[in-house]
Amino acid sequence: MGKTGTVTSLQQPPKSFTTSAAFEQNFLPGLAIDAVIFGFHEKELKVLLLQYRNSNLFSLPAGFIRKDENLNDAAKRVLQERTGLQNIYLEQYYTFGDLARFDNAPMKKIMIGNGLQPEADHWLLRRFVSVGYYALVDYTKAIPVPDEMSESCGWYDLKTLPPLIQDHQAMIQKALTTLRENLDRKLIGFNLMTETFTMNELQSLYETIAGQKLRRTSFQRKMLNLGILERVAKKMTGGAHKAPYVYRFIAEKKTG
Amino acid sequence: MGKTGTVTSLQQPPKSFTTSAAFEQNFLPGLAIDAVIFGFHEKELKVLLLQYRNSNLFSLPAGFIRKDENLNDAAKRVLQERTGLQNIYLEQYYTFGDLARFDNAPMKKIMIGNGLQPEADHWLLRRFVSVGYYALVDYTKAIPVPDEMSESCGWYDLKTLPPLIQDHQAMIQKALTTLRENLDRKLIGFNLMTETFTMNELQSLYETIAGQKLRRTSFQRKMLNLGILERVAKKMTGGAHKAPYVYRFIAEKKTG
Repeated sequence: MGKTGTVTSLQQPPKSFTTSAAFEQNFLPGLAIDAVIFGFHEKELKVLLLQYRNSNLFSLPAGFIRKDENLNDAAKRVLQERTGLQNIYLEQYYTFGDLARFDNAPMKKIMIGNGLQPEADHWLLRRFVSVGYYALVDYTKAIPVPDEMSESCGWYDLKTLPPLIQDHQAMIQKALTTLRENLDRKLIGFNLMTETFTMNELQSLYETIAGQKLRRTSFQRKMLNLGILERVAKKMTGGAHKAPYVYRFIAEKKTG
Repeated sequence: MGKTGTVTSLQQPPKSFTTSAAFEQNFLPGLAIDAVIFGFHEKELKVLLLQYRNSNLFSLPAGFIRKDENLNDAAKRVLQERTGLQNIYLEQYYTFGDLARFDNAPMKKIMIGNGLQPEADHWLLRRFVSVGYYALVDYTKAIPVPDEMSESCGWYDLKTLPPLIQDHQAMIQKALTTLRENLDRKLIGFNLMTETFTMNELQSLYETIAGQKLRRTSFQRKMLNLGILERVAKKMTGGAHKAPYVYRFIAEKKTG
């Protein structure tokens, strides 16, 4: 199934929305943040998306930077608001600033779908440069939270993404490429795992991200040689001799 | 010597400077570009810096993004303006957005040093988020060009940098870290070499960037196995049997 763990908004659509004057007073102009939040569940890599109200359009979780806020802190805030999680592993990976991404027709449609009648120069319809972050979260711990303009917030398989606004499809692709490049070098994959896991589950994660099968014996040897895995005591069951070992990550998870 | 290949400005200091209104009309607000331009000369890694007029302060080449311009194109423009070079290898590596970098006292001093009396809210004194790019150029081909507010533009050894404004020191450090990480994976080092070079010269570049000595035989084997080097015919000289082979990079240089 493409869509899982979706949380639907109980809020009413906003009657009013931040005015341009209020936005300009509180936020940095022209700059946004978009977050590609990866999760891993049932051998699929997933990404957290919002569906806008009264539209078939989806987007990455996004936000703006307060005038008294560090850029990276704004990203942490956006992630926490959408997942309920603190101390997420996140990494800034690229800043998107092509003119081509400045197509405000979909946003206009979304705003009208939310009962607004935006003036032509409304701040949400201006050109934004967006700083892209990717985050790795434990799927089982995140609680998706829709934002003001969204009907729902949920996980979608990377393989079957719904229609996304602007260049969000390309943003996800570039985040995945960066994640692949960094996977071995930075040992960040563990941030996507549950508290405990089997070697098979860990291998499945690496295979999914890399997009290719790995050799079981060499993968296992490599992982154990890193010295960052600890065996958890086996539970006693009838077929205990056949149960696989369960591991836990012993170093602290990185937080970017 | 720390400073080489410096070009001094023949221009008079600007009598007036872009007004806030003119800036806002033509450029994206709140967003800048800073470029760490690396060169390699006499076994030293160098970086291109500007010295502001009537001050002992230096800065990275910087610029702003026109409203009708892609972010990456603005970076190319800045690089071309400062080096005279087109098709430079450049890579976006990080966007700097800490509040702490927003200290406008040095810029105020520089503006006054240029004969200006900026109003408190002058656009150059506002908070900017800056997209960092690093570039790799052939030192022998770049022609440093000072900008409007600079007295000179030249190359400085990474080991003996002069006092830099804002977080430019940290920007250079992070660019160097990224360059190190990418050196093997992306084969970009060749962009720092002259047209032809000896294996020793290439090894010296890699050692300088990595900050450590490499084994001659394994380095040579690795480089030759990449299949991207071509031997250039030896010049006939008296001691030809002792002259080292000269190489050329056969793939097209990457342009980011």
